[in-house]
Amino acid sequence: MKSFRTEIISVGTELLLGQIANTDAQDISSMLSEIGIDVYYHTVVGDNPDRLRSCIETAKNRADIIITTGGLGPTYDDLTKQIIANCFNLPLVENKSERKFLYDYITNVHSEISENNYQQSLLPEGSTVFHNLWGTAPGCAFRKEGKIIIMIPGPPREANNMFKTYALPYLASLSDNVIVSHEVRIFGTSESELDDLLRTDMSSMTNPTMAPYAKEADCFLRITAKADTKEKAEELIKPVLIDTVQKIGDTVYGIDVHNLETRVYQLLSEKQMTFSSAESCTGGDIARRFTDIPGASQLFLGGVITYTDDTKEKLLGISSELISEKSAVSEEVARQMAQKVRALTGSDIGVSVTGVAGPANDGLHEVGTVFTAISANDICKVIKLNLGKERNRAYIRRASGNFVFDMIRRYLTGLPIVNVFKNVDYLLYRDLLS
Amino acid sequence: MKSFRTEIISVGTELLLGQIANTDAQDISSMLSEIGIDVYYHTVVGDNPDRLRSCIETAKNRADIIITTGGLGPTYDDLTKQIIANCFNLPLVENKSERKFLYDYITNVHSEISENNYQQSLLPEGSTVFHNLWGTAPGCAFRKEGKIIIMIPGPPREANNMFKTYALPYLASLSDNVIVSHEVRIFGTSESELDDLLRTDMSSMTNPTMAPYAKEADCFLRITAKADTKEKAEELIKPVLIDTVQKIGDTVYGIDVHNLETRVYQLLSEKQMTFSSAESCTGGDIARRFTDIPGASQLFLGGVITYTDDTKEKLLGISSELISEKSAVSEEVARQMAQKVRALTGSDIGVSVTGVAGPANDGLHEVGTVFTAISANDICKVIKLNLGKERNRAYIRRASGNFVFDMIRRYLTGLPIVNVFKNVDYLLYRDLLS
Repeated sequence: MKSFRTEIISVGTELLLGQIANTDAQDISSMLSEIGIDVYYHTVVGDNPDRLRSCIETAKNRADIIITTGGLGPTYDDLTKQIIANCFNLPLVENKSERKFLYDYITNVHSEISENNYQQSLLPEGSTVFHNLWGTAPGCAFRKEGKIIIMIPGPPREANNMFKTYALPYLASLSDNVIVSHEVRIFGTSESELDDLLRTDMSSMTNPTMAPYAKEADCFLRITAKADTKEKAEELIKPVLIDTVQKIGDTVYGIDVHNLETRVYQLLSEKQMTFSSAESCTGGDIARRFTDIPGASQLFLGGVITYTDDTKEKLLGISSELISEKSAVSEEVARQMAQKVRALTGSDIGVSVTGVAGPANDGLHEVGTVFTAISANDICKVIKLNLGKERNRAYIRRASGNFVFDMIRRYLTGLPIVNVFKNVDYLLYRDLLS
Repeated sequence: MKSFRTEIISVGTELLLGQIANTDAQDISSMLSEIGIDVYYHTVVGDNPDRLRSCIETAKNRADIIITTGGLGPTYDDLTKQIIANCFNLPLVENKSERKFLYDYITNVHSEISENNYQQSLLPEGSTVFHNLWGTAPGCAFRKEGKIIIMIPGPPREANNMFKTYALPYLASLSDNVIVSHEVRIFGTSESELDDLLRTDMSSMTNPTMAPYAKEADCFLRITAKADTKEKAEELIKPVLIDTVQKIGDTVYGIDVHNLETRVYQLLSEKQMTFSSAESCTGGDIARRFTDIPGASQLFLGGVITYTDDTKEKLLGISSELISEKSAVSEEVARQMAQKVRALTGSDIGVSVTGVAGPANDGLHEVGTVFTAISANDICKVIKLNLGKERNRAYIRRASGNFVFDMIRRYLTGLPIVNVFKNVDYLLYRDLLS
């Protein structure tokens, strides 16, 4: 199979000013990766003829496929076609049917059409025209000097749709392999522990390949294979996937699952069980994350956010004496929060979080001290986390939420509910609710 | 003033696979544009030593400032420092204090530290170290061969914060004019309405300049001036700012305020008042957004998430007859939710949201139908929103939350509590709580 090195050049000063992110390059790369075409470079350059020309020349030297986005519109700073045509010694010629389309389209909305609009109907001689069904400027493709050149408008919706509709089928016909990838989602084994565990495997692998990625208190491994058919790529991945999951162990919470809350959603759905939450330092984030999932109302009955000592008493009925004696950030309060919200809502599972997210501490505990609890009809367990006093508020809230979702996962899959972090006290209750 | 040509090189195969957008380059470009430093190119390259080296060489030929993001982590494919040090003939040397930090940081959470973590403490000889307060890998900067090189980690939060904290002040000191900008934050006047209202002003302005930006159901105008001193730039902005705010009116909720919840935080602090929330379709997002602000516990007493009809009764005591009669998504239920959560928590203000966030509707209302209410000792007001059935779940939740925060703002500043969106029914109650 011939391998095509691809470069995506996005043209627009608004990108260099940081006014928008380059989602065109992202969308196009994502589509290309699915048909097994390798993107080697993204380049962003402003609406400047000399610099654009030099980027095109650089791309001619290092890529087989050059895809540009942007700079096809009607204004004076839309220069992409002119510069590319010039770099490949092609004249621009007017496309009659695009000219007619522009006239009809624009006069349908405005009383008259200004002459500069017709600039959009000029295309490099011999191009295949991509008629724009989502805006006005057509895109185009041509082959010359052993290169494939594709030009697509800049506005994200136009870029995405035009690429998918016209350019992708054209390029897919050139590629004779497919790429398949799977994600092993992990909570409780860090990116560097994964690297330690799997470095030998990863560095010697060529097909499939495997790489770890970390995201706030959560991480995943991506295993990617290339073959001529989807089935063959899956066959290449399968033994590696099985072996890797075995090596990592029960911190693997799913394959191709978007996040921990989605895994909990799946498990609750399977078992037809419900949960509720009592949150202090996470301030509603656990509920918010779960209810981001459409259909969550079947499984999440409700929750309370008891952000002060007083509301812990008023909303949950936790005695103020207990709070005075033990403090709001304590094993006992966490336990009662989980038990009481479960009883109040009538859910199968109740979870809770109380802790110090910072930046200030509560005078008793370091920032990062968090108690999480899970209560169900056969278990009530509290775990104390020390998430690290140098961590920031957002991290502590995020990690605490992940921890709570992981407790639910462990409970529902029959795994021991252990703290996957270090420096943790384990506290276990098995008292049935009265 | 010397002009610095800047290139941002982002390193990471995940960018070329389209798994994430290059928001690092966007954020950094946006910050650089504010201090008057011109970005000429963005480049994205994978974790491949030869291609990375060639991109660095290209950048050396066309830029004065080279900023890299990514590739500073502990794994075998993190190569940025090695390649750059090599391109500039500098050895990598271990930074003792970063080594100690890594040891402390990692062993605080995990039982042991794996050796590869220390790779992060190796930095090009003579670099200025940017200690990472948001993660583990330090960044750095050095000057050599007439170039300024800055390396920043890839994870967006780390990249954004590290650049802002360390690199930006350093680069600002090189620029001999100052750029000052202010943001007029607006809720309830759309970007295109702003464009209509201010187009004549905006298109003829050169210094200051003014541009509108929109973000999910919230928008702002940025007014930017350039001068040799901060004071002169402020003087240029002042009359434009005053005039613009007058033209827009009371949908302006603040100047240089990060978001609506921050404005509400300021107002509650000034007045020493508290609030509580009862959320249905927003699922805790209002509480979560407010408690993202450090110090929120002084002002937010707590809340309930009554995600089902049953929990509306159990947690808030709203009668199931009322819900059966009027439906959970109704004016009466919204009103009672706000009143009852206020009474339960003893807060000065109670707010509520109940609606259909989609994707499925409730059989009675279109997706996007949302009732929001505010209750205080002298007012109880419900507003019905039609956020549009073609909007997605995330937008409807976000916009509903913004609307609730704006109701609190309007109440606290003595403005009429009106619906700032179109197609809306106005419902007003002035019954005092029993």
